[in-house]
Amino acid sequence: MSRALTFIDGHPGDQVPVSDRGLQYGDGLFETIAIRRGQPCLWQRHLARLTSGCARLQMPPPERSALAADAGRLLAAAAANDGVLKLTVTRGSGPRGYAPPPSVKPRCILSFTPEGRDSAGGTRADGRLIFCATPLSENPRLAGLKHLNRLEQVLARAEWSDPTILDGLMCNPRGQVICGTMSNLFALDHSGLTTPALTTCGVSGTVRAVLMECAAALGIAVTERPLRPAALYAASGLIITNALRGAVAVGYLGEHRYSPEAVPAALIACVRRRALEPEMPL
Amino acid sequence: MSRALTFIDGHPGDQVPVSDRGLQYGDGLFETIAIRRGQPCLWQRHLARLTSGCARLQMPPPERSALAADAGRLLAAAAANDGVLKLTVTRGSGPRGYAPPPSVKPRCILSFTPEGRDSAGGTRADGRLIFCATPLSENPRLAGLKHLNRLEQVLARAEWSDPTILDGLMCNPRGQVICGTMSNLFALDHSGLTTPALTTCGVSGTVRAVLMECAAALGIAVTERPLRPAALYAASGLIITNALRGAVAVGYLGEHRYSPEAVPAALIACVRRRALEPEMPL
Repeated sequence: MSRALTFIDGHPGDQVPVSDRGLQYGDGLFETIAIRRGQPCLWQRHLARLTSGCARLQMPPPERSALAADAGRLLAAAAANDGVLKLTVTRGSGPRGYAPPPSVKPRCILSFTPEGRDSAGGTRADGRLIFCATPLSENPRLAGLKHLNRLEQVLARAEWSDPTILDGLMCNPRGQVICGTMSNLFALDHSGLTTPALTTCGVSGTVRAVLMECAAALGIAVTERPLRPAALYAASGLIITNALRGAVAVGYLGEHRYSPEAVPAALIACVRRRALEPEMPL
Repeated sequence: MSRALTFIDGHPGDQVPVSDRGLQYGDGLFETIAIRRGQPCLWQRHLARLTSGCARLQMPPPERSALAADAGRLLAAAAANDGVLKLTVTRGSGPRGYAPPPSVKPRCILSFTPEGRDSAGGTRADGRLIFCATPLSENPRLAGLKHLNRLEQVLARAEWSDPTILDGLMCNPRGQVICGTMSNLFALDHSGLTTPALTTCGVSGTVRAVLMECAAALGIAVTERPLRPAALYAASGLIITNALRGAVAVGYLGEHRYSPEAVPAALIACVRRRALEPEMPL
């Protein structure tokens, strides 16, 4: 039986010092990684995003081979089968004050949670999206990063409890739709797929990139440009992507229904194959 | 001798579970409280802000009398004289995912750090402000709250290391000056004081409110309205406020010098008297 297990800097443990800057300021990054048959999916992409995020936050990245070794030991110790590996990297501990310490030793937290494949809030094709009232703030310095400042997502996610709702969509203060609380968004129409550019807010999803590659392979055009709510209602179909679900064709936006055939099945299948199958053992 | 000491939920300790939502999402609030001769300054105001912040984040507030008792025991155990009491309240531990748990047990972290009275980056009247390049994002749902999502302040504070700089000013994406990384801002001109309204971003400072009361008592008008950088250069004087410094008349904004006599000494003295003297023992 798989069991939940956490390693901190390579050692079993489930506590961090109060002085950790992740707790004090949300000063860090995280990755949510699908585990299938005990192995991580899209490991290289997750590590690449984490490394580039560390550079943008001006903190040293974790050493990749050590991290892979730690993840391998954790998954083995947890007897992992299917589940979720959450990797959190903070700027480590420091004295009081916002100023990053002159010498930073990042803290790496790896947590495995066993989960069924369909536990992530539903992946059914008749799933529903709603609009959240909580807006998403804009800051180009943080845009695209999967950082630890997630209060907006917490407040947005608190807006619904119906477990059949796939996700809640969030808009920037200008009323443009950016993403779900935990997924990226694509709208399909006669010209192809449209997804919001993530230049001022949103998370640059690993599976968002996979979907764009699958679309290219299938000859479907993808454009990054602003999406107004009206464009979602006018679309023939919507797709959401995240690391645990791959790609899901949306059934409803509020009460508005999309045809189940609108989204090419080959596109969904391509994303699931690439994003939810481990490439190789760690 | 005073010593650093931390209580978690009333018990000595300096570790929190990895599952704490403060670490996972920055899902919580904090207060930075000046300690003088072992007693907290502006305790009631800090607790009132914390309580209203908890309501806005839809989490149960800590019980005030228990928190006061814990703070009293901590300060006694630390043999506290002058220093800083940091009070952090998170939404406690929960399972994976943004959704707040149905039953929340907030976690209260109290940390005392001994510090000299002038250690908070300088309080000298010839101190300098600079402009930070890191913008401050806008979200009315979070505006005014002293929440744990502080990556913007971390990035802004990383823009300078000169210890004689008082603080760095941050602007919203529309170029309006909102506050410093760790202080509120007032500009003085012939019509009185102007300070930015904090309706879309910024922290509603305890000493900001004290200064507004002192100004009223001294017959100085205070207006809340947008401040452009040009208005700061045109001002006769600038004042910054925070819980550890009280009010400080700014000497320079970049290379621009303000007359040391522009800011009424009675205003600064009033704020320091009210904000940096304990009202009564806990």
